[in-house]
Amino acid sequence: MARIAILGAGMMGSALVFPLVDRGHELSLIGTHLDTEIIRALKAGADHPTLRLPLPSSVQPFYAHESSEALRSADAIALGVSSAGVRWAGQALAASLRGGVPLLMISKGLVYGEQGFAILPDVLRQELPSELDVAPVAVAGPCIAGELARRVETCVVFTGRDANAVEAWAELARGPYYHVFASGDPVGSEVCAALKNAYAMGIGFAAGLHERIGGSAGSIAMHNCEAALYAQAILEAQRLVELMGGDPACAAGLPFAGDLNVTCNGGRTGRFGRFLGNGLGRAGAITAMNGATLECLEILETLRAGLSALERRGQFLFSEFPFLRHMLEVALDDRPVDIPYREFFRAPRPT
Amino acid sequence: MARIAILGAGMMGSALVFPLVDRGHELSLIGTHLDTEIIRALKAGADHPTLRLPLPSSVQPFYAHESSEALRSADAIALGVSSAGVRWAGQALAASLRGGVPLLMISKGLVYGEQGFAILPDVLRQELPSELDVAPVAVAGPCIAGELARRVETCVVFTGRDANAVEAWAELARGPYYHVFASGDPVGSEVCAALKNAYAMGIGFAAGLHERIGGSAGSIAMHNCEAALYAQAILEAQRLVELMGGDPACAAGLPFAGDLNVTCNGGRTGRFGRFLGNGLGRAGAITAMNGATLECLEILETLRAGLSALERRGQFLFSEFPFLRHMLEVALDDRPVDIPYREFFRAPRPT
Repeated sequence: MARIAILGAGMMGSALVFPLVDRGHELSLIGTHLDTEIIRALKAGADHPTLRLPLPSSVQPFYAHESSEALRSADAIALGVSSAGVRWAGQALAASLRGGVPLLMISKGLVYGEQGFAILPDVLRQELPSELDVAPVAVAGPCIAGELARRVETCVVFTGRDANAVEAWAELARGPYYHVFASGDPVGSEVCAALKNAYAMGIGFAAGLHERIGGSAGSIAMHNCEAALYAQAILEAQRLVELMGGDPACAAGLPFAGDLNVTCNGGRTGRFGRFLGNGLGRAGAITAMNGATLECLEILETLRAGLSALERRGQFLFSEFPFLRHMLEVALDDRPVDIPYREFFRAPRPT
Repeated sequence: MARIAILGAGMMGSALVFPLVDRGHELSLIGTHLDTEIIRALKAGADHPTLRLPLPSSVQPFYAHESSEALRSADAIALGVSSAGVRWAGQALAASLRGGVPLLMISKGLVYGEQGFAILPDVLRQELPSELDVAPVAVAGPCIAGELARRVETCVVFTGRDANAVEAWAELARGPYYHVFASGDPVGSEVCAALKNAYAMGIGFAAGLHERIGGSAGSIAMHNCEAALYAQAILEAQRLVELMGGDPACAAGLPFAGDLNVTCNGGRTGRFGRFLGNGLGRAGAITAMNGATLECLEILETLRAGLSALERRGQFLFSEFPFLRHMLEVALDDRPVDIPYREFFRAPRPT
């Protein structure tokens, strides 16, 4: 039994309490300043407002301002904040974190700055005191929070730069329905986790194009193109992962092919792509999403900035990534969807 | 413009007339002895009975006994017979086929015999006179016939042991919505095409398990496990392709990951898996399929026979293919579905 604190009470942070409580751990769930309503509901004994489920009764909810004791006494900490909140979380943790405490990041993402592309665990590490003995562990793979909270069989990858830290968190978390596989490829896993949001949008184009000509979702006449987009997405992800220093095998596994499957089947990213395919245009599609966070736009902006710089230096060719290039044109430049199938499935040019 | 004969008037053979007619070719569609009703309908000017569409009016339908002239005068021939009919088709062709005529096989599959595993183009080649200059070309990738016949954008792979023959057929067939990519890996492509039928069944287990506990298809609480099964399927397919002498990259591309996507979304194989996951048992699931051809059972029998022989010789370990092993137990031995997630995503043992 361990004392575990989860910082961030959104859907994924809160869903993670289920496998952890079921393993016998003692859980503190700490809201960020964005989670005040959620913590208020939980303190009042109500269901979790977005998961729409009661949490296990042993879970202790805390407001952000009550967090320091829970963080200081924790044997392990998980961060369930959004990608945008990672720097904030790092600073919030810096005061309370003891060395050697295993730290799990649920947020996924990729940023681009002066040093080039960086994965979120590395961004977080930079925010923590450099003398502290902490190596963040990241999670990747197909996991819809609402399903995990309903104890659906789920397979995820835990990964990081320190194998002992990875195994420590994997050992705390794995259980009868939460299957945790350790990986030593944090770059590959995190790049995949970011990319799948972009490509899930692009795969949604197929359903949108189909609806545009009067077809309805799920009926005949969209699966052939959807499947072709899926295969091209895996091909391009393999190359992007390799370019960024990860193992391309990742892209055919849980972190990309698996997570892309779940994202296409379930999520808002695919719905946004469908609106684009249906011809709503960038502004129309954003409006139709009613204010939902669109990670795909964020990752596409990041990819365009970073990859354009690489192309200027002769280290990248957009022409070898025709699907990605088209997604950038559609989602960022408001060009109509017109999928360049003929450019797909080409071998990369000799360098 | 070329004169093209298609032998076999089932759904896929007949769907192929659309891109070929649209490219300006002159088409003969020849029924096998199983297609008499289809040819009768077409000769009467009715819709194609299973595609439920009229064929382009320039297509000439022929009964099997009328075939020899059409075959003899053809500039290119495609075989749209089922896997089981390949030997028969080879013998039927032997009399009429001229050397140098490009020959496309639409049937996909894998057989196991005294020589080990063999792909269908090689089986067909054996049935043809050895002195004849013919190298069969095979097609792989995600293509639902009913969608191709409605001119949906479709990406497929043409492959074979002779690059010129592959390119000749690709050049005849590729057009504005039928995108043909040439591959020099017939073994990888054909093994993938066969395997995806087996794995599509296994992925269907997830939906069935979900229905069994009262969930309905598409709702929350099945996507996490479905996505994990999908990723494990790609991993096992990569290893099986390599074992059989193909390029494992195939398994992450159109011939497996792409085709598996379409098969899970559309086809009867996934429905059969769902019935098994739902607890109907082997006999119950077969009954529920109302006599539909179940390629998955055929390929699973073939894999068990061939891989067991390899295991006895120390060249294969079923323990490294836990998903395949479980599919064999469920579909062939009538064991209940109980997915061995914990054995998934393991590195192969050192040899």
